[in-house]
Amino acid sequence: MSARKPTLALIGATGAVGTVMRDIISSREDVYGEIKLVASARSAGKVLQVRGEDLVVQELTPEVFDGVDIAIFDVPDEVSATWVPIAAERGAVVIDKSGTFRMDPDVPLVVPEVNPEAARNRPRNIISTPNCTTLSMMAAMGALHEQYGLRELVVASYQAVSGAGVAGSARLYDEVEALAGDRTVGQTAGDVRKAIQNKLGDDESPFPAPVAFNVVPWAGSLKDGGWASEELKLRNESRKILGIDDLKVSATCVRVPVITTHSLAVHARFEREITVADAHRILEAAPTVVVMDDPAAGVFPTPADVVGTDPTYVGRIRQALDFPNTLDLFVCGDNLRKGAALNAAEIAELVAAEFAG
Amino acid sequence: MSARKPTLALIGATGAVGTVMRDIISSREDVYGEIKLVASARSAGKVLQVRGEDLVVQELTPEVFDGVDIAIFDVPDEVSATWVPIAAERGAVVIDKSGTFRMDPDVPLVVPEVNPEAARNRPRNIISTPNCTTLSMMAAMGALHEQYGLRELVVASYQAVSGAGVAGSARLYDEVEALAGDRTVGQTAGDVRKAIQNKLGDDESPFPAPVAFNVVPWAGSLKDGGWASEELKLRNESRKILGIDDLKVSATCVRVPVITTHSLAVHARFEREITVADAHRILEAAPTVVVMDDPAAGVFPTPADVVGTDPTYVGRIRQALDFPNTLDLFVCGDNLRKGAALNAAEIAELVAAEFAG
Repeated sequence: MSARKPTLALIGATGAVGTVMRDIISSREDVYGEIKLVASARSAGKVLQVRGEDLVVQELTPEVFDGVDIAIFDVPDEVSATWVPIAAERGAVVIDKSGTFRMDPDVPLVVPEVNPEAARNRPRNIISTPNCTTLSMMAAMGALHEQYGLRELVVASYQAVSGAGVAGSARLYDEVEALAGDRTVGQTAGDVRKAIQNKLGDDESPFPAPVAFNVVPWAGSLKDGGWASEELKLRNESRKILGIDDLKVSATCVRVPVITTHSLAVHARFEREITVADAHRILEAAPTVVVMDDPAAGVFPTPADVVGTDPTYVGRIRQALDFPNTLDLFVCGDNLRKGAALNAAEIAELVAAEFAG
Repeated sequence: MSARKPTLALIGATGAVGTVMRDIISSREDVYGEIKLVASARSAGKVLQVRGEDLVVQELTPEVFDGVDIAIFDVPDEVSATWVPIAAERGAVVIDKSGTFRMDPDVPLVVPEVNPEAARNRPRNIISTPNCTTLSMMAAMGALHEQYGLRELVVASYQAVSGAGVAGSARLYDEVEALAGDRTVGQTAGDVRKAIQNKLGDDESPFPAPVAFNVVPWAGSLKDGGWASEELKLRNESRKILGIDDLKVSATCVRVPVITTHSLAVHARFEREITVADAHRILEAAPTVVVMDDPAAGVFPTPADVVGTDPTYVGRIRQALDFPNTLDLFVCGDNLRKGAALNAAEIAELVAAEFAG
């Protein structure tokens, strides 16, 4: 392949992740030739900016992929199911953010810090990027796994509403506006629900319960055994990314009233004894991880303090008192950046480097 | 002892728990003779209602305990340290909500559904009632332990701001009012902190970070190994209440923007195999536990739906896929009711029954 700058297409350019994706592409090293913005017919014709250029959003058609080298898809699962194979057959290397192909054995699931080599082995011309909850901890857990051998994960999530897209953020802003100023709300059963209903009527929420002044232990769709799809993704995707087929994982996924940045409380058992000092050393050396762990000085990561930035933040690292070879820790990562757009952009850069080669 | 109705004193009658305590005492079976309300000199002289009677709040002095049979203390640890022994020496059976005496081997730590018999063995005339986070799960975990033998707990908490008292609730209401209407906040690092600072200035927060549009992985004071005191309480108090000296526990305690009702994601390993059906059967039979566990119908507990009520609510019960004899579940309990005032009232009723006997 002669060296050239590949043509990039962003499919789903107008969504929550698409917006962040345009920012990220604009602020990182420019490794692309032409860039195309693509969306549904409803959004086609809009003018949006990338790299300081005004671009007209094109409608998603088979022909839009002509001449495209790399296509990043951020669209619902069913749209990916139809359109990703079309783009891949027309010759684009597809980086797909949906859940559709993640567990396909012929599709690599890539976190560039953890398994970059997997991106080169793509028989279907498709590379998947993980669920945002899984991604929130992967850079950190991958670094620890490499040296100490991860065996078990028990995870509880504190997931931001923008994980459900633009509608998720809008809903939390709406609910907070509906409830603000009432200093009795949240004190009797159902009062939050009733106050929201009074102000917002039957506006549809992407969540199955109020999310303001509340936490909601549900994310995704119902699977066997009462598991939520998001919880099984965290298990199955962690196994595939880390290459540990028998990794033991239990997760409980909970939505919290945070706009953006997922947090995870992680209980992680390793093959070998690992101290807090070991974990600090490894995580401080990991290029995309930031350790915020000095509780005596009030230093630990919170979503409000790290949102909008790229790294995975780790704090509250403790050696479990009763479990051998086990750490308890708290991780925060921006679900729209590392959790979605940034990881896809990093994969695209891995592929773009092949064109430069 | 001849049958009579004991005199009850409520010390700390004006706080967040004290307010709920007066409601609870007023709504349950009336087993008391006289009731005295007691608080610091600052609050003495206020008139408050219990059982429909107006009572003048009395100042905390040694003499206030003359004639008192049962004294329920809800005051800071250091106030309990001074005053609980004074009340106990003057003949009152003290039920203390503070952390001061919980781990004293001569002070029983009682959850009436789990270890009511312990309340009778009180060499110091003091009975302790657990931390609200521990209490949120004890009725449920005690019932499961009795039949299946609990061995390990990995817990992540979603703790309400009223766990930090009236000032905690006020702070969340203040922060929400300061942020409502700004539909960009929570999207860049530090913007929540800055917006709160702009509106609330240097008003002191009981929390080490913004709690609106945020989660804060810290509760209590710093202990060895980076542990927060709240996390160690959950471990040590669970062991004492359940009578399992070697129970393995790891907890991560996180404050969330919920006014009242703590939630816990619990990963619990038992001695014997336990199915979801077993757990449903046991928990449905437990008198103070309500099972809300039908995800296909969108049924699971959330704080907003159960706050202000007495039971412990359990949902999302799943058999762990990779861990033997292990359940994952989600528990909600009102931290001011079962988590504090209600448990103390139930203990007081156990003691009052001795007077009737």
